[in-house]
Amino acid sequence: MIRGLRQIDPYVAGRQPKGKNLIKLNTNENAYGPSPKVAQILDKFDTDNLRKYSTLDQANLCSALSEQLGVDQDMIIVGNGSDDILSMAFLAFFNNDEPVLFPDLTYGFYRVWSELYGISYQEIPLTSDFKIMTADYLASNGGIVLTNPNAPTGIVKSLDDLEKIIAANQDVVVIVDEAYINFGAETALPLLKKYKNLFITRTFSKDAALAGLRVGYGIGNPELMAVIKAVKNSINPYNVDSLAEALACAAVGDWNYYRDTCQKIMTSRDWFSQELQAIGFEVLPSSTNFVLTKPIGVRAENLFNYLQSKNIYVRYFPKVERIKDYLRISIGTQTEMEKVLMTINDLLF
Amino acid sequence: MIRGLRQIDPYVAGRQPKGKNLIKLNTNENAYGPSPKVAQILDKFDTDNLRKYSTLDQANLCSALSEQLGVDQDMIIVGNGSDDILSMAFLAFFNNDEPVLFPDLTYGFYRVWSELYGISYQEIPLTSDFKIMTADYLASNGGIVLTNPNAPTGIVKSLDDLEKIIAANQDVVVIVDEAYINFGAETALPLLKKYKNLFITRTFSKDAALAGLRVGYGIGNPELMAVIKAVKNSINPYNVDSLAEALACAAVGDWNYYRDTCQKIMTSRDWFSQELQAIGFEVLPSSTNFVLTKPIGVRAENLFNYLQSKNIYVRYFPKVERIKDYLRISIGTQTEMEKVLMTINDLLF
Repeated sequence: MIRGLRQIDPYVAGRQPKGKNLIKLNTNENAYGPSPKVAQILDKFDTDNLRKYSTLDQANLCSALSEQLGVDQDMIIVGNGSDDILSMAFLAFFNNDEPVLFPDLTYGFYRVWSELYGISYQEIPLTSDFKIMTADYLASNGGIVLTNPNAPTGIVKSLDDLEKIIAANQDVVVIVDEAYINFGAETALPLLKKYKNLFITRTFSKDAALAGLRVGYGIGNPELMAVIKAVKNSINPYNVDSLAEALACAAVGDWNYYRDTCQKIMTSRDWFSQELQAIGFEVLPSSTNFVLTKPIGVRAENLFNYLQSKNIYVRYFPKVERIKDYLRISIGTQTEMEKVLMTINDLLF
Repeated sequence: MIRGLRQIDPYVAGRQPKGKNLIKLNTNENAYGPSPKVAQILDKFDTDNLRKYSTLDQANLCSALSEQLGVDQDMIIVGNGSDDILSMAFLAFFNNDEPVLFPDLTYGFYRVWSELYGISYQEIPLTSDFKIMTADYLASNGGIVLTNPNAPTGIVKSLDDLEKIIAANQDVVVIVDEAYINFGAETALPLLKKYKNLFITRTFSKDAALAGLRVGYGIGNPELMAVIKAVKNSINPYNVDSLAEALACAAVGDWNYYRDTCQKIMTSRDWFSQELQAIGFEVLPSSTNFVLTKPIGVRAENLFNYLQSKNIYVRYFPKVERIKDYLRISIGTQTEMEKVLMTINDLLF
């Protein structure tokens, strides 16, 4: 009998099925793939450089991001995906007795990190139409985490509302997780000038089509940066490999490519949403690269299984009571979405 | 005033100086660089694959390591460097009231992780000749972490002694950090068959010359694996990127190359140790890719600064009382070590 082993209920990620002809719309990846510039930098990379440790500060990537975002370089921290950044942020910023607040329906990891690190938390129910209510976040608390646009709902909160929450909570850190920000929502970046308690996280996994590279970043004022950088240096200082940094730099350097592909995804999303509504499905208004939809005329579980039998993978959350009748469908290429719609039509009509 | 910000004293990594003609012997990197097979796989890698998340289980790399090490694939967990694995292991295995034991002179991160995660710990002094005393680790405790060979001393502990410690502590987890195992020491892998409480960690940063790629792994029995995998899935499930996994697989597949370069490093280490002793320096017997040496006839600080002025970077620990008169010098190529010796001779004679 070994003592001291931790009991924990981990996050369950979407499946990564293998195979050639499948349409994979279950983990919000970007079907258009990375910029050709990424391949060019990969081709030039000298593997001999890998014998040396990667940098501790990812100065090249921070510099590229600084220029892209219009924030100071020392306000950026890079990590092994935004999960890495968020996990560190929970450790760094949420050391209060009062509970950290986040919605009952949001990125499932907020609860998991809170449990893992022994952080007290309170899940605030979204409204019946899946919206974040500003008033719920104005009372005293130990910190706040909001995904904006929210996942898995796809619904965006206005910058005015967000500002009300940040302004009312200047004694704690408010994290705004902008994983999906570049699919049509307004960023909270301009608020950094006014509020020292705001910390924004981003990822290269969605808009930049580099989910397999594991790069994310956080943006905040120097006081917060000092704290999260100390945490990073207390866990795994070399958390971003040299190749990943070089390729992420290449992606930032070709952002026009990504603006185009994000636009294509938004166009397909709006088209797909309308088509689903036309066949009677309920569809939440999405500002992300996925839609949350409630099928009508077929149970979510049956549609999920039917799509999978046709090699189309979407996400189904049978254990999440409020959305157990919904499916989350990532937006792939227009061709893929047409095929998904046709497949649904085949089943229903 | 923002509440809840963590105060912490982080680990301080060796500097990463930039420049062309420097000899960098301060972070125990491998001067010979990665296998040519690594470059071949990089050349073939299709960046379009990066649009998809990396795997959750790194099955390809686990399979390659399973074959190389002769352990079951399900006894291996891969991470973002062995720092990632060790950090997770502290969270996963050390949830006892009694303190975790490790030497007062060892990898500085054990103390940092313990502090970060609120794990009670006790630093056990090495003997006056920097050895780990077996008897110190036989009383009841909350877990044990030993680097073998130890760093920054370089001194190896015999497998018999290690087994005594593991056998006497079957009610807690004993971590053996084998970062430097392939520079002449005997691995504890065979003990995994007898002891369910043993967890071994390894890295691609030293022997495999892939410090910049950030890949490490842990090996243990299924009961421990289930616990640490749940922790991994509770922090950052996609912690190893697709490129890193592919290149690490290539390295494992060309292990004969690494056996040769490790042998070269060992030969240079033994030669360099003898030469330092010949000029009167104290040198600890090393089974790693570095030596810890006490200069005689010049203060450690002065030699450190002098070497740096000649573009030679070694590691100096002025704040670590027991070794403040020592320098840790990584073993580079034979040519580099000859130059280091000549430079030292220039100063002294």
